[in-house]
Amino acid sequence: MKNVNASIITIGDELLIGQVIDTNSAWIAQQLNKIGVAVKRRIAVGDSAVDIVDILDEESKYSDIILMTGGLGPTSDDITKNVLCNYFGGKMVVNEGALKNVKYLFEQVFKRPISEVNLRQAEVPDVCEVIQNKRGSAPGMIFNKGRVIYISMPGVPYEMKGIMEEAVIPLLKEKFKLPVIVHRTMLTAGIGESALAEIIKDFEDELPAEIKLAYLPTYGMVRLRLSTSGFDKNAVEENIDKYFNDLKLLAKDYLVTDLDEPMQVVVGKLLKEKNKTVSTAESCTGGYVAHLITSVAGSSKYYEGSIVSYSYNVKESVLGVHGDTLNTLGAVSEQTVVEMLKGLLGKLNTDYGVAISGIMGPDGGTEDKPVGTVWMAVGNKEDYQTQKINLRFSRERNIEVTGMMALNFLRKFILAN
Amino acid sequence: MKNVNASIITIGDELLIGQVIDTNSAWIAQQLNKIGVAVKRRIAVGDSAVDIVDILDEESKYSDIILMTGGLGPTSDDITKNVLCNYFGGKMVVNEGALKNVKYLFEQVFKRPISEVNLRQAEVPDVCEVIQNKRGSAPGMIFNKGRVIYISMPGVPYEMKGIMEEAVIPLLKEKFKLPVIVHRTMLTAGIGESALAEIIKDFEDELPAEIKLAYLPTYGMVRLRLSTSGFDKNAVEENIDKYFNDLKLLAKDYLVTDLDEPMQVVVGKLLKEKNKTVSTAESCTGGYVAHLITSVAGSSKYYEGSIVSYSYNVKESVLGVHGDTLNTLGAVSEQTVVEMLKGLLGKLNTDYGVAISGIMGPDGGTEDKPVGTVWMAVGNKEDYQTQKINLRFSRERNIEVTGMMALNFLRKFILAN
Repeated sequence: MKNVNASIITIGDELLIGQVIDTNSAWIAQQLNKIGVAVKRRIAVGDSAVDIVDILDEESKYSDIILMTGGLGPTSDDITKNVLCNYFGGKMVVNEGALKNVKYLFEQVFKRPISEVNLRQAEVPDVCEVIQNKRGSAPGMIFNKGRVIYISMPGVPYEMKGIMEEAVIPLLKEKFKLPVIVHRTMLTAGIGESALAEIIKDFEDELPAEIKLAYLPTYGMVRLRLSTSGFDKNAVEENIDKYFNDLKLLAKDYLVTDLDEPMQVVVGKLLKEKNKTVSTAESCTGGYVAHLITSVAGSSKYYEGSIVSYSYNVKESVLGVHGDTLNTLGAVSEQTVVEMLKGLLGKLNTDYGVAISGIMGPDGGTEDKPVGTVWMAVGNKEDYQTQKINLRFSRERNIEVTGMMALNFLRKFILAN
Repeated sequence: MKNVNASIITIGDELLIGQVIDTNSAWIAQQLNKIGVAVKRRIAVGDSAVDIVDILDEESKYSDIILMTGGLGPTSDDITKNVLCNYFGGKMVVNEGALKNVKYLFEQVFKRPISEVNLRQAEVPDVCEVIQNKRGSAPGMIFNKGRVIYISMPGVPYEMKGIMEEAVIPLLKEKFKLPVIVHRTMLTAGIGESALAEIIKDFEDELPAEIKLAYLPTYGMVRLRLSTSGFDKNAVEENIDKYFNDLKLLAKDYLVTDLDEPMQVVVGKLLKEKNKTVSTAESCTGGYVAHLITSVAGSSKYYEGSIVSYSYNVKESVLGVHGDTLNTLGAVSEQTVVEMLKGLLGKLNTDYGVAISGIMGPDGGTEDKPVGTVWMAVGNKEDYQTQKINLRFSRERNIEVTGMMALNFLRKFILAN
């Protein structure tokens, strides 16, 4: 049986000049994959009628489902709705449901006067089926032509997600006979992509054709993913799990989790299991580790807070680092992070703590301590460990990789203590 | 004179199942725009030979330049190099420069034994011109066919950026006669997209055809961008600046900056100008505001740090919020953020401070204080202001929008005080 293929088209000039990063199409791809739709291509095109028409023509050759986002806003640079109206040979009419929704939003939610421009959001081509948008003023639209279904959604992620979850996913599941696509993903840390490839070379060579292996580097770690598909869910899962278990054994020294979840979720689960708390003292990461931890819903169960000690002053006055230590050894030193850790645990009274100090660049490096030098300490009231790392990326990436390495260092300490 | 068009193709199954967000193509698009290359389309395809060949055939109809990233890694799921070798009718040979580079990286930088797999990174099709990769082991490759130039780069952002900056951009500037593309972007806050559209409606109606206006919503703010192009740099800039100045006047009550820079950079510049310092006390944003501020290089000049007081305990013990206040009015209350602010300014001794407490969801809301309720306070030692906001997004977006609104609140307070 052949795959059901989809193309995802994001529309907007801002995507082509790189002013925004497209997060919609990754999210849509995830949702389609979960229900067994194979994403064939993701394309970004500009707010140009001829370019939109060209890409619709092309993608309809490859795909059964074409999902579009963007270009449905109230302003004149948003042309998608009119282009689709012409493409499918319709004319614009007011949709009563959409009109009611726009009025409700402006009168009850935004509490702003409603304008001509806003009211035009309720107009749709008479050849489409309307999907009401409960989170905004631009409705979604469904068109059918030949064997292909075309769905247009707003580009605002929150609105698009509502329409996908409530209407599009149920519709596609009903309309198509979809195979089960199964992925198994694990996260490894502390080993590079090619070293990992050496370790699992024999395994990889012997993988059957129906199972694909992918290496996904992420913040200095590597995720390994096995993928397969079929129509008998149990058989497919049994088959992939056999290989996935073998792979876990091979990678066991570097395995962080055998689920497709980020490091901060793994650390959070571990703390919840042990009923323990943690706090952080951050210099160079400037609150990024706190942000990672608190991006997880329910993190207040195990996270107390962070002292972001960006200056010498805060290191001394809040964390109690000795002026002598800072002046003789410097803020980026083993002794400083140890004193930060001890001050943190004393002050915030958590079971575990992490302290980080380094030079993220682009300036601030010296011959002894080049940009990318980072010291970190992790510990509890009885014991601690320190490590020094050397990074060689941009400021942004140095912060991200340091944050992840600190969480991995914490994870290993918790497991051992 | 016609545009020089480019297509950006990112290759990797992980892009189609949505496991990673593609940041490469936005960055590449920015760089191309700066030198006057118009990006026609951005496409993501899987690690599949037939899909890569199809897309190369198609894009060569539209574009003069085809830039590819991804699929050049050392592992067997990386097939781009072999596909290109077949597509352009070459055979694999060892490139001496690339071989030297791989050996250098493993012996001097990674300090790991070099494997068979790694050595294969030095093999390239004999029909390409090699671009050496100073940041990694996979070289870039240039192919010419008909009027189209094809360039293949590794998918690791840090490596791709090095190759783009050092080799690709200079090459394209030399090879093509490129127009000047000029954008002018401003950031507005405190007004929605459609309300802004009403204010500038007449301006928009009277814009000449060669100038395009775009509305770019971003974290609850709106960027406005004018774009135009031509071959006489001075004339093009004079023309767009005239309209841009008119637009600034129309949007003046909401204008944050008339440069294409984020809020955190604007706030940082303001503090540096005034030679003042700031600190933050964050509950619900969990370090995100600190992260925004410290993502700017040089922020240590004006930023002292943050007390991320995620728990009641830290609010009381570090910031000195009264237990009574927390117990009677709750952590999400005007009184709590005022006490957080006062404690913060007393403790960290900065000129300005910001305090934030709210409920980011998905759980934790009550009838009185639903998810999305946020209180914030901003002030100095003499004065302060508070505001309450109500958001209705996901946890992730609630944190992001709150962070931006807090920085805007701070910006306005600094300007007035």
